[in-house]
Amino acid sequence: MASTFGTLFRVATWGESHGRAVGAVVDGCPPRLPLEESDIQAALDRRRPGQSALTTPRAEADRVRILSGVFEGRTLGTPILLLVENKDSNPADYEAMREIFRPSHADYTYQAKFGIRDWRGGGRASARETVGRVASGAIAEKLLRIALGVEIVGWVEQVAEIHAEADPAAVTRAEVESGPTRCPVPGAAKAMAERIEAARRAGDSLGGVVALVARNVPAGLGEPVFDKLEADLARAMLSIPAAKGFEIGSGFGGTAMAGSQHNDPFYTADGRVRTRSNRSGGIQGGISNGESILLRVAFKPTATIAKEQETVDAEGRPRTLAAAGRHDPCVLPRAVPIVEAMAALVLADHWLRQIAIAAAAERIDGASH
Amino acid sequence: MASTFGTLFRVATWGESHGRAVGAVVDGCPPRLPLEESDIQAALDRRRPGQSALTTPRAEADRVRILSGVFEGRTLGTPILLLVENKDSNPADYEAMREIFRPSHADYTYQAKFGIRDWRGGGRASARETVGRVASGAIAEKLLRIALGVEIVGWVEQVAEIHAEADPAAVTRAEVESGPTRCPVPGAAKAMAERIEAARRAGDSLGGVVALVARNVPAGLGEPVFDKLEADLARAMLSIPAAKGFEIGSGFGGTAMAGSQHNDPFYTADGRVRTRSNRSGGIQGGISNGESILLRVAFKPTATIAKEQETVDAEGRPRTLAAAGRHDPCVLPRAVPIVEAMAALVLADHWLRQIAIAAAAERIDGASH
Amino acid sequence: MASTFGTLFRVATWGESHGRAVGAVVDGCPPRLPLEESDIQAALDRRRPGQSALTTPRAEADRVRILSGVFEGRTLGTPILLLVENKDSNPADYEAMREIFRPSHADYTYQAKFGIRDWRGGGRASARETVGRVASGAIAEKLLRIALGVEIVGWVEQVAEIHAEADPAAVTRAEVESGPTRCPVPGAAKAMAERIEAARRAGDSLGGVVALVARNVPAGLGEPVFDKLEADLARAMLSIPAAKGFEIGSGFGGTAMAGSQHNDPFYTADGRVRTRSNRSGGIQGGISNGESILLRVAFKPTATIAKEQETVDAEGRPRTLAAAGRHDPCVLPRAVPIVEAMAALVLADHWLRQIAIAAAAERIDGASH
Amino acid sequence: MASTFGTLFRVATWGESHGRAVGAVVDGCPPRLPLEESDIQAALDRRRPGQSALTTPRAEADRVRILSGVFEGRTLGTPILLLVENKDSNPADYEAMREIFRPSHADYTYQAKFGIRDWRGGGRASARETVGRVASGAIAEKLLRIALGVEIVGWVEQVAEIHAEADPAAVTRAEVESGPTRCPVPGAAKAMAERIEAARRAGDSLGGVVALVARNVPAGLGEPVFDKLEADLARAMLSIPAAKGFEIGSGFGGTAMAGSQHNDPFYTADGRVRTRSNRSGGIQGGISNGESILLRVAFKPTATIAKEQETVDAEGRPRTLAAAGRHDPCVLPRAVPIVEAMAALVLADHWLRQIAIAAAAERIDGASH
Repeated sequence: MASTFGTLFRVATWGESHGRAVGAVVDGCPPRLPLEESDIQAALDRRRPGQSALTTPRAEADRVRILSGVFEGRTLGTPILLLVENKDSNPADYEAMREIFRPSHADYTYQAKFGIRDWRGGGRASARETVGRVASGAIAEKLLRIALGVEIVGWVEQVAEIHAEADPAAVTRAEVESGPTRCPVPGAAKAMAERIEAARRAGDSLGGVVALVARNVPAGLGEPVFDKLEADLARAMLSIPAAKGFEIGSGFGGTAMAGSQHNDPFYTADGRVRTRSNRSGGIQGGISNGESILLRVAFKPTATIAKEQETVDAEGRPRTLAAAGRHDPCVLPRAVPIVEAMAALVLADHWLRQIAIAAAAERIDGASH
Repeated sequence: MASTFGTLFRVATWGESHGRAVGAVVDGCPPRLPLEESDIQAALDRRRPGQSALTTPRAEADRVRILSGVFEGRTLGTPILLLVENKDSNPADYEAMREIFRPSHADYTYQAKFGIRDWRGGGRASARETVGRVASGAIAEKLLRIALGVEIVGWVEQVAEIHAEADPAAVTRAEVESGPTRCPVPGAAKAMAERIEAARRAGDSLGGVVALVARNVPAGLGEPVFDKLEADLARAMLSIPAAKGFEIGSGFGGTAMAGSQHNDPFYTADGRVRTRSNRSGGIQGGISNGESILLRVAFKPTATIAKEQETVDAEGRPRTLAAAGRHDPCVLPRAVPIVEAMAALVLADHWLRQIAIAAAAERIDGASH
Repeated sequence: MASTFGTLFRVATWGESHGRAVGAVVDGCPPRLPLEESDIQAALDRRRPGQSALTTPRAEADRVRILSGVFEGRTLGTPILLLVENKDSNPADYEAMREIFRPSHADYTYQAKFGIRDWRGGGRASARETVGRVASGAIAEKLLRIALGVEIVGWVEQVAEIHAEADPAAVTRAEVESGPTRCPVPGAAKAMAERIEAARRAGDSLGGVVALVARNVPAGLGEPVFDKLEADLARAMLSIPAAKGFEIGSGFGGTAMAGSQHNDPFYTADGRVRTRSNRSGGIQGGISNGESILLRVAFKPTATIAKEQETVDAEGRPRTLAAAGRHDPCVLPRAVPIVEAMAALVLADHWLRQIAIAAAAERIDGASH
Repeated sequence: MASTFGTLFRVATWGESHGRAVGAVVDGCPPRLPLEESDIQAALDRRRPGQSALTTPRAEADRVRILSGVFEGRTLGTPILLLVENKDSNPADYEAMREIFRPSHADYTYQAKFGIRDWRGGGRASARETVGRVASGAIAEKLLRIALGVEIVGWVEQVAEIHAEADPAAVTRAEVESGPTRCPVPGAAKAMAERIEAARRAGDSLGGVVALVARNVPAGLGEPVFDKLEADLARAMLSIPAAKGFEIGSGFGGTAMAGSQHNDPFYTADGRVRTRSNRSGGIQGGISNGESILLRVAFKPTATIAKEQETVDAEGRPRTLAAAGRHDPCVLPRAVPIVEAMAALVLADHWLRQIAIAAAAERIDGASH
């Protein structure tokens, strides 16, 4: 239920931040995909804490183990269990959270919902849960890359008030990975890093925006009505901790345009129907049109800050809180591989759904003509 | 699949714009809810075409019939079939679309996906599909209102560059319904109406933003990880035709704030944990916290315009198109009841999921102590 | 939920026995399948009441209308709404059931579950609900026949203590349809018809067994673990009103054999792996092996009988009941098209799931070699 | 998908027989349930190999570890990851299966479906997969026992031609566990054990029947139409390896009775509606009626036998096979805890679904009156 995502390429994540381990089960990955632990490790290394001065100092190597579903280097078509042990858990840092609700965190709502919660570092609500997403997403991304040549690149487009203008048609993962902010525009990247450092020193935190492009996505992915491709992408992105907004293509900015400016004219090139502009973000009527998928995700400033804040305890009594524990002053750099993973999971699922439709219809055509 | 929404309160819509009928099946509505066709008709009347000079002139009374699931004025707990006949279908107006792809419409992508499409007025991709959503949503909204006192109010906050500042704590449906724009701020409403009229005269179209508040939502709705309340709301909203963006609480605007400004401090009032501000939009960690749910949805300018546009036909040959057929110059006024319906569907579903958890846990507590 | 079946080829039925109408929504039928109302009507005519002296005299023409999802004679890939109006509803006959629970019927359990029920002829629990199944199943069967050449034949194998031995490899639908019992063995058919007539005269009812064969089912349908093909078939069959048992292949009879007798030896013929016997019933490890699917479904004697029975009323007071209303003295003849429909729905769904897997794996192979 | 079961109490199993580990994720267990690894271990000890001379000699301690979802001895309401390492895997024994398809096993069908398979001991198709089911089922069973007082008892009712007549109203788990056959009737148990020993010595195998009773199940569990309680039980049971048949209540035997004999008369006792007989098996119209749930599951003789058999290899060439490797000569004794686990999973899921309905309807009543 709550922890399961997808229809045919299906992922369930599990694990608490300071429990024994975190991970995921991937059920529905097609068989015969070449897969090694190193394929997944590469993605986890981009997500893991402690990778730079801009991120939380929690020291987790985040070594992934594949416990099922892969045989002699290829997927079996059966569930793939991915497991990462929690090594540097330090619950003592969080002892205060046993009684006190951190503002704008999930402490209070988990208590209200379940009547019990693992107060150690946020438990299930911690961003540590995203280990399972990134590990699963690495499989989805490899599938899409091998089978379709899909390229997914996410980057930090904004931190606080600092914007970076990157060209979605050209931006590469190498550029994104060239610095700790994951902003591919050097000047903006430098300004962002300084801004994040300043926030950390001030005991404060920052938010921002991750942008993402998916290139070489075939036309036809997505379904009418509720399972529109942008709807599933929106759900995927808003399920990431700290996400507050989502845009596909022109997004909120496009609302001020006239239809005659906003529409993407069709033309034909190399025998393929193309659009001259891409305000649609690669999706029309819920279905991909073969242009690049373009989306943006807003992340709020990290809720955990060292500055003193007003709050209440489990009995509702007024308290103040200045957070100990380890945390990122800005989630944006580490959010990039998570946004990419979620995009890959959505696209892989919809690709499997689409090839079922296409293969069935071809079979019908072949028989009825 | 594609046309089904929800886990326990589940809705499937069906129908093409110029087919025989449109409607929905609601499976999972609790039994014993008082329900008449008039409850649903009231919602459909707010969505129907031809209700004002600002909307499409297609003349549809949109009379709903309940064909199952209700007995002696109350729901049975079995599927409720809702049916609305298409009366004023006029496929001849759309004859040109048989061959030509309308820019930024679903014509091309449906053809690419299915290899066949009902070209009459967009078929399944037409906003006429939302009849089934609004009809279902009216049931969900009645359930939430009767069982919990939930109040859902949506309104037009922006049309093109015109913004209206309404107070989410105070805005009422009566204010929203006081004029054809569904903007509760009279001055802005007047400006929007003029702007829409001007666009219509120019053969062009406009976009904008719908805002929504849901009051009296209990704490505890929503699930960890993928089924976060905001994730399901985002999916619901991005599944609406022409939706391009979604924000919960502070949204994109909140990304420029520091954590110390953005966090919502907790305090206690009347024995209940409250937050002083509501940048969380009533949801923390994916779960409602008892404050009002606040969200915004961006809609692009209507794709169908009378102005001439560049496009291609089914063989990929260059064509120009100046749309005949009936359409809204701006979808915003009619989008309001659709956004409200989708919010109601998400909240009703999550409420049923939550009471299962709460009732089970209470039973466990009762037995183990 | 309750009224939805399938993963990719998905069906939801709706409607009460004496409400306005009954029907189904089929969501996920592949596009471009030639489909007319007459395709569906043919199946409904085999299920409808009043077709022979052996069935209930309720007079329903059961004319089906397709209200969506089909355009110019072919499926669109969008939801197909199937509607059959209830014409000969006669609730007055059932007035006694408002207060009295019929033994071995759903009257009491619906009341216990929902606290409300449509007491007119069983409401949702009536076999009239199966109109939607048979109508949907006709589409699934046509899909399987056109795309794969699958032949599905069900027949009455047993009524009370009378058995008929038909050859699953040879039995045809024409033989089954040659008489009102739907038993393809003439001598047994005659004995069954007499036995059913005698039961009717005695105000009593009979049970029996429907057998089914599905030929030309390709190898590879079904999934490991919970979605085994036989598991989904078992669920499908036990969901039919009055069903009490299910067997795949050797079933209960096979439990008395030794493994050396029971195993199906493999051999090769025409380049294809075959089995010499078929005690597996065409399924091994949950997945079809290319041999014919063989299954049997047990149906209890009709619960509604004219003989006087002991029961209680809604207040729990002792009452006696001799049923008025119209009913079948033996459901077996009309159960045949229902069993066939459920088999078709399961096979169509698993075929779509399998071609997604196969097409994806081929794409992977093509790219990685 | 394939490896996921349930709607609200949801289980996904994972793992190959000779891979690194096997286990399950339980998503949707209510919070605050007291749970220790020992609760689960007790169930696994009844399923594990090597527990008696009647079972496979594979030596697996099957120590379970809970890696998530439990905190300070109680469930959190978040996913519970259960892991059991494979210790005594001995793939060398299965080297022959790399090339040869074992008759009536899943070797051929997995190859046909996936084009790849883990040939070591059946991989995912091995009964070792049921470790995850039994571990999950132990949680469901504890939930049902604590919250409702439900008692689930399964037993071996038949091995080959030997039947045991136990009284479902009285049979206890202690009686079942008193000997290695899990047959609670001492004389029959002895005969069964001898028969199994003889089969082993002959290099052959046997089948049989497991019966199950679930007592104290409240009325109201199960849904109309496709999610009938018996339908979900049938699916659950037929998903167990080697299962070939399912009966609820009177099953196939009841098909020879007249309705006047078969119907269960209602009466009232202690203010509760009861039935004098229980041919319904505790379920009417798909919904539990408060009487004991009674069901039976047929298991075929173990496919793996030491006797020489005719088969083919991966190239379709004729081969003979006399199985090495470790296996049970009769799965019945170890099938008992698996059948119990599946029953518990179905009942727990339907209980959660029912309390959502009941709690919602109560809330509606409270508000509308």
